Amino acid sequence: MDWLSAPCSTPNQHFSELAQARQTQLTKPPQALGDLETIAIRLAGLQAREQPAVERVHISIFAGDHGVVAEGVSAFPQAVTQQMVGNFLQGGAAISVLAKALNAQLEIIDTGILEALPAQDGLIIQRAGAGTANSAQTAAMTHEQLAIALQAGFDAAERAHAQQADIFIGGEMGIGNTTAATVLYCALLDLEPATMTGAGTGLDAVGIAHKTQVIETILKRHSSCGNDALAWLASAGGFEIAALTGAYLRAAQLGLPILLDGFITTAAAVVALKLQPAIQDWLFLSHASAERGHKQAISALGLQPLLDLNLRLGEGSGAAIAVPILRQACILYNQMATFAEAAVAGKL
Amino acid sequence: MDWLSAPCSTPNQHFSELAQARQTQLTKPPQALGDLETIAIRLAGLQAREQPAVERVHISIFAGDHGVVAEGVSAFPQAVTQQMVGNFLQGGAAISVLAKALNAQLEIIDTGILEALPAQDGLIIQRAGAGTANSAQTAAMTHEQLAIALQAGFDAAERAHAQQADIFIGGEMGIGNTTAATVLYCALLDLEPATMTGAGTGLDAVGIAHKTQVIETILKRHSSCGNDALAWLASAGGFEIAALTGAYLRAAQLGLPILLDGFITTAAAVVALKLQPAIQDWLFLSHASAERGHKQAISALGLQPLLDLNLRLGEGSGAAIAVPILRQACILYNQMATFAEAAVAGKL
Repeated sequence: MDWLSAPCSTPNQHFSELAQARQTQLTKPPQALGDLETIAIRLAGLQAREQPAVERVHISIFAGDHGVVAEGVSAFPQAVTQQMVGNFLQGGAAISVLAKALNAQLEIIDTGILEALPAQDGLIIQRAGAGTANSAQTAAMTHEQLAIALQAGFDAAERAHAQQADIFIGGEMGIGNTTAATVLYCALLDLEPATMTGAGTGLDAVGIAHKTQVIETILKRHSSCGNDALAWLASAGGFEIAALTGAYLRAAQLGLPILLDGFITTAAAVVALKLQPAIQDWLFLSHASAERGHKQAISALGLQPLLDLNLRLGEGSGAAIAVPILRQACILYNQMATFAEAAVAGKL
Repeated sequence: MDWLSAPCSTPNQHFSELAQARQTQLTKPPQALGDLETIAIRLAGLQAREQPAVERVHISIFAGDHGVVAEGVSAFPQAVTQQMVGNFLQGGAAISVLAKALNAQLEIIDTGILEALPAQDGLIIQRAGAGTANSAQTAAMTHEQLAIALQAGFDAAERAHAQQADIFIGGEMGIGNTTAATVLYCALLDLEPATMTGAGTGLDAVGIAHKTQVIETILKRHSSCGNDALAWLASAGGFEIAALTGAYLRAAQLGLPILLDGFITTAAAVVALKLQPAIQDWLFLSHASAERGHKQAISALGLQPLLDLNLRLGEGSGAAIAVPILRQACILYNQMATFAEAAVAGKL
């Protein structure tokens, strides 16, 4: 896992300064396009281009199962993880529909669902195990499993880069994974299970109270991990979260901008940020999730969401929904006329 | 102007109930797609269709000049109104770039800029005058001029409907029009100039203080308008705001959903709402503008913005930027698999 410590790429100051200057010359009052102006300036620096673009979108969905489901922390049965992977592959899931509409490259990586599916188009099999162990009783994964899961993410970022993606989106599927993500937030950002634990796929108040207790148990059981982000990742799981962490780190090393999805992917980003704070330069946050705790976490991280539409689906769907905002930021920046070109007078 | 009182169309309850039921069967936890689910349900009812759509987008930009500019209320010279109309027609403005990317129908209507431009493709000439009169000294327009401007909006909605648009977007250009819009907000929603007056195209603090005084003068001068929304519209202007009011009313009468842009278009919607409260059913609000006062106004109206990206450009640009959100709401609703189709298990 030596690659984890390779430095993140450095945004190109020259191109972001060029973009900053051009924004002031386009036919609009200064800053009138708000956050879209900042997005174009950031992307120009990250992509080291005069014309930033978000046309080629690479979406990697990592799926994995969670031993902690045995504690009764999810409103949906564990079989849904594999069933939803089938739905992704058949085109019926939200992320399938969105990826098609965006003309994005979509791939599904089995990092360790309970029962593997047969090899098929669109499915990459890179399993660290048949689901994680129950983190309420033991570490969710071994060091070797962690390495496999991180590598699955590394490989996805490499594929995105090889295919000349303009942006990398990671998504996930894993019944039980809001429990794992909440443990990571609490352990690494010093947040409280009582305010961070949410409904996931749809727990009621009694279910959330029970899930909160399970999360407290996990935090206590693995408290010796201290500030070691990788140790917490191995202890709490899951394989798909580890893969996302690996993918984000590798994307930033390769100079590929990252669009975060919601509650689970942001938890993976927290681990990546603990390992390499410089990854922050490469992150865009698509939305503030309706999953309880996400707004608290992104506030702690200083991440600004592009959207706030009460989404809480995962799969990378929130990131996909935000892609048109990034695309519009780029086309406005690339295609608008300057005051000089349009013969429009400037400010009095 | 008898047509102003023709009733708004009634949303189709049958299709919104069908959509409500289908949302619960799609492969996602209940409400996991948040506001996008509500959007699809609303659109199904408004469009009276099983498959709501926002593919055909009609954008009408109304341009007009403002006599009140003589009071020194704008950071940009008045000539910019006409120059920007030229920029719209030549494809260099933000709304031109966005309309092209959305494959939208874009038309510019001169409702009364200072000097008319020659007839040309994409420009509709329907002038109520050579700019309004100075509302700080007299009524901005006569009753006859108001009727012409409202009719320009009526005609735009009729064209959109004839072209089978799925949604109507109104935009505007008019140096000085944040002053007119602020007067309408204060007069009709009982809000205070001191907290509602903003920078417009870029006034500094001194400029905003002066603009606030001008707005207070206008409110006092025309206080006999009382609760008469049309009288306020004629007194404060502008032609483009009156045209937007007419367009929104006619769109709702024709059963065409409306996507509001920002500060100016919402002020036109306030006038329309005062005339016919039932128009609210037909309104979607694209964004919360960075122009001071907009958030206060939309809170008073109970309108929820789709986006909050610090936009304050006008031209219909914020509405255009929000179109992909509506489109994605529709394609998710139309194309996702149900639990039964995908053989995915439901909630425990």
